[in-house]
Amino acid sequence: MEIQTPDLSLFHHRSDLQLRFNDVDVLGHVNNTVYFSFYDTGKALYFSDVQGWPVDWRNVDRVIANVNCAYIAPIHFGDDMEVLTRCSSIGNKSFTLQQVLREKRSGQIKSVCQTVMVAIDPVTQRAVELTPEIRKAFADYEGHEF
Amino acid sequence: MEIQTPDLSLFHHRSDLQLRFNDVDVLGHVNNTVYFSFYDTGKALYFSDVQGWPVDWRNVDRVIANVNCAYIAPIHFGDDMEVLTRCSSIGNKSFTLQQVLREKRSGQIKSVCQTVMVAIDPVTQRAVELTPEIRKAFADYEGHEF
Amino acid sequence: MEIQTPDLSLFHHRSDLQLRFNDVDVLGHVNNTVYFSFYDTGKALYFSDVQGWPVDWRNVDRVIANVNCAYIAPIHFGDDMEVLTRCSSIGNKSFTLQQVLREKRSGQIKSVCQTVMVAIDPVTQRAVELTPEIRKAFADYEGHEF
Amino acid sequence: MEIQTPDLSLFHHRSDLQLRFNDVDVLGHVNNTVYFSFYDTGKALYFSDVQGWPVDWRNVDRVIANVNCAYIAPIHFGDDMEVLTRCSSIGNKSFTLQQVLREKRSGQIKSVCQTVMVAIDPVTQRAVELTPEIRKAFADYEGHEF
Repeated sequence: MEIQTPDLSLFHHRSDLQLRFNDVDVLGHVNNTVYFSFYDTGKALYFSDVQGWPVDWRNVDRVIANVNCAYIAPIHFGDDMEVLTRCSSIGNKSFTLQQVLREKRSGQIKSVCQTVMVAIDPVTQRAVELTPEIRKAFADYEGHEF
Repeated sequence: MEIQTPDLSLFHHRSDLQLRFNDVDVLGHVNNTVYFSFYDTGKALYFSDVQGWPVDWRNVDRVIANVNCAYIAPIHFGDDMEVLTRCSSIGNKSFTLQQVLREKRSGQIKSVCQTVMVAIDPVTQRAVELTPEIRKAFADYEGHEF
Repeated sequence: MEIQTPDLSLFHHRSDLQLRFNDVDVLGHVNNTVYFSFYDTGKALYFSDVQGWPVDWRNVDRVIANVNCAYIAPIHFGDDMEVLTRCSSIGNKSFTLQQVLREKRSGQIKSVCQTVMVAIDPVTQRAVELTPEIRKAFADYEGHEF
Repeated sequence: MEIQTPDLSLFHHRSDLQLRFNDVDVLGHVNNTVYFSFYDTGKALYFSDVQGWPVDWRNVDRVIANVNCAYIAPIHFGDDMEVLTRCSSIGNKSFTLQQVLREKRSGQIKSVCQTVMVAIDPVTQRAVELTPEIRKAFADYEGHEF
């Protein structure tokens, strides 16, 4: 369950993140649940760049199967955050995204996350094989075959 | 209870807003509750600019007494949003903030909000008179006496 | 913009509310934006009781035009909260909901909210007259004509 | 990274969960980020039962190091949800919580989560050994030594 800090040079997708006042909980840190809003936002922007906007969010062809998130250092209001996203591996019916939350001024890595997503048929909601189109889109964006 | 669309030239404070994927509810719009996260974020940045950063969020000397928000047009994922904030009036123990949510590409005003905040003693939590310092900070920032 | 505390005996709809750990912000209170999640949840359950479940959330025939919320006392984690909801008036194309957040053990009223909702055509998204069916559903539930 | 569905008879702590209207995203399911609000709420109530209420949330002596969450079936508005929580193992400076989200009417398991928490010194924020008191509190609550 240990997540290794990934090699940042592998990431081609970065998005700035805006913190909101109510992201901060009673402990004075960005609440642990908010990290997933950050990662989710990174995923949406990544998919949009890989496959082209607009994505049809009501006809979705993939679901999250597993999220594994390491909390490395607390995030504070005022931190200048970004999320890095890449597709790190592709299987038959699933693929894995690797993501990093990073403070831009210090370069400090705050969190690392790995998400397994499964391709589904939008109608039956059953797992299906990844299409050649989505495989090619990932390969083109990441710059290598999987 | 009707809120008039304010004169935008009166606003000196603007902040870009980042939408998050999970801001959008089942209706396909940014959920009505999220607007208050936007306004709250605008307030935090406004106070920080008016009074200087960092604000001591654990020793807070003001609370929200009333929020009045008009929903003018739905916000969609992909909209390029900003929040405008100004202090529109100051009373003895309270002041009023006026805020606008605006789509930057179209210029469309999506929502207008008025918030009454009351000065409190951080220890007793009772309403107290606004200090001369905070009055001066608002006047200096807004460019006129109240 | 002042909201009068309503007569609680007028309310026929009450729902218990569950607080979540991350509802509490750095000030140690339930964040002001969370109140609207409470009110929204009360509305959804109220509509469901007035009109019968399930509501078709993707074909929605009403939108929020205005929310006016008074914050009377802070809500803390551990408070035993409920939301009261009623339809307080009906116009030609709109209706008004009155809602109260109340701590059950102490009976303390924490917040009062008034929401104006406008009937829309789901396809054109334009304001339309309230149907006789929805008028009758409100009158039947509230026990009087409007 | 695969999480096995745990033996439900091992869990002594259950809490009902209330869904909120805005938990549901554009896909019509409870958004994946909301699961962590559910798990967080379960953790807060579990700690409160294990150690006695009130917990001093501003003097917190443990932080989340890792969350590993499996999404098994979507959650819909109207589902009658509960969260089960237990301490599944204790190390020198850390312990692991196992949690389950379950629909009560069908008994369907919607999600399983494992959270590693690390004991810290509230002042230095450094990892420290778990105290004998917290070890005993877990053992007493769970009904066995670790």
